[in-house]
Amino acid sequence: MEKVLKFVEEDLKRLEESIEKLVTTRVGFIKEIVNYIIKAGGKRIRPILVILCSKMCGYKGEKYITYAAIVEFIHTATLLHDDVVDNAKTRRGTSTANTIWGNEASVLVGDFLYAKSFELMGEEDNLEIVKVMARTTKLLSEGEILELVKTSDITTKEEEYFEIIGNKTAILFSAACEIGSILGKADPDTRGFLKDFGYNLGMAFQLTDDILDYTSYDEVFGKKIGTDLKEGKVTLPLIHAIGQATEKEKKLIERLLNKGNITAKEFSKAFDLISKYGGIEYTSEKARIFTEKAKTSIMQFPPSPYREALLSIPEHILSRRA
Amino acid sequence: MEKVLKFVEEDLKRLEESIEKLVTTRVGFIKEIVNYIIKAGGKRIRPILVILCSKMCGYKGEKYITYAAIVEFIHTATLLHDDVVDNAKTRRGTSTANTIWGNEASVLVGDFLYAKSFELMGEEDNLEIVKVMARTTKLLSEGEILELVKTSDITTKEEEYFEIIGNKTAILFSAACEIGSILGKADPDTRGFLKDFGYNLGMAFQLTDDILDYTSYDEVFGKKIGTDLKEGKVTLPLIHAIGQATEKEKKLIERLLNKGNITAKEFSKAFDLISKYGGIEYTSEKARIFTEKAKTSIMQFPPSPYREALLSIPEHILSRRA
Repeated sequence: MEKVLKFVEEDLKRLEESIEKLVTTRVGFIKEIVNYIIKAGGKRIRPILVILCSKMCGYKGEKYITYAAIVEFIHTATLLHDDVVDNAKTRRGTSTANTIWGNEASVLVGDFLYAKSFELMGEEDNLEIVKVMARTTKLLSEGEILELVKTSDITTKEEEYFEIIGNKTAILFSAACEIGSILGKADPDTRGFLKDFGYNLGMAFQLTDDILDYTSYDEVFGKKIGTDLKEGKVTLPLIHAIGQATEKEKKLIERLLNKGNITAKEFSKAFDLISKYGGIEYTSEKARIFTEKAKTSIMQFPPSPYREALLSIPEHILSRRA
Repeated sequence: MEKVLKFVEEDLKRLEESIEKLVTTRVGFIKEIVNYIIKAGGKRIRPILVILCSKMCGYKGEKYITYAAIVEFIHTATLLHDDVVDNAKTRRGTSTANTIWGNEASVLVGDFLYAKSFELMGEEDNLEIVKVMARTTKLLSEGEILELVKTSDITTKEEEYFEIIGNKTAILFSAACEIGSILGKADPDTRGFLKDFGYNLGMAFQLTDDILDYTSYDEVFGKKIGTDLKEGKVTLPLIHAIGQATEKEKKLIERLLNKGNITAKEFSKAFDLISKYGGIEYTSEKARIFTEKAKTSIMQFPPSPYREALLSIPEHILSRRA
């Protein structure tokens, strides 16, 4: 990934300037919150996809930076609203916007970012991209709602889980790549390859996220994260375990999903069940399959530095530890 | 207003069918909430503006119904998010969606309605209208955020109040009229008249709302009297009183704005101060001026049944008791 970051270094610098410049508002409070959450970090993976895909498709203009910023704005808006919905206190080790400024501000600034994104897209006069992003944001909200409906539901099926993560995560990765292909005036087949690439990459990304939620350590608190279990999110490692669990084990999982504030000991119990039934390995294998699919799509393109950069992203996603 | 409603009766029937038909989603839960809040009533004043303005501008097509529905969707999305921000328990006498399904659902279904609206606009292939609505939703969120920032702030200036209500209310009335003019392929001057008409109408509407919040009763208004004071909203009747109040009176108002759950006796104290300084009359007079401005814009059009219908709306708004 370091090679990719080096490769798009100049573009990422311009992206940061563009993000700063495009958040124009008379309301200082908005700027404060947007700056806080956008600058809190993030890997800029979605903007990088816009940049690399547009260039691989031969786009020579300057607008890819604006669209890269727009995709990050949409992503940021979803984070603001997600943290309200999940009542999340921290993200990437720092306090969430709703913890600092309240849920009200997070809801409204999220709305501002969505609207600002569509305003910017309107100004770019590309109705095709407006359509893609409108459909994408609709699917994003449907994914989030489906996830909400399925909270603490131990009967959640694997297909339902895939539908949820497809909508809430993969679709925005897919849109980022599709925007690149539209800018590069790619033919329908090429556009399809890039959409698929983004989608499969997004699936692998979310599956890895859901594994890390059970396996990685929080550097700050020095303990396992387990946020999903606390929030009642039934992700694949757990679904796989539930599918084989005894009635007694299922009851335990259900109780933990509904409990909210679980102890380290309780988290261990859930993790032990996942381990017992191979939930992590199963999810890893699914993630691997999605990265393979993603790579196959990219291999449809002729060799180029952009192709090589895009090709390295799935592996990076699969091997990430945080 | 009965005459106007009679005049657009057929269109309103088609609007209701259209609203029903356009909320397509695989997620049943979304449909349930949207139906609840959209069917909870509402005067459909914004869709009526789209209908009448498009027809007055000579539009002969069928798309005005879709746009009328879209404007109502956007309005509904703002209501869903507003009720979360204000922590409102009831609206128009019935429980708010957040009371029934929780803040999480209201946030996400609001997001869905915004996104669905832009998806529908994209499908209509009219980038001009997409631009108007993107700008409008951005200003809506800015208005809401400005209002949030000014919560319980007794130094709120009249200009700031007008900026807030301009953004949070008038701009959507204005956009509804502007969409009508765009559909009717009106020239820039005509479009300007309708934008102004909608804006001034929206201002009068919100001013009247802010008066009714102090003067109307539970049964009529559908929401508890004095909601604004409870929510810390500093509206014009209060701003006018604060401008003339003694230091002791200002302290009382500030305490009530910050208190949250005020008693009937405390509400009376605030209302007495507003009466003492003529805050209701002052606000009524401002509302009257905006309705006059609105009527002047409409009088630029040649006589027609549409003009007459539009002309009757400002008076209705001014005289409404609920």
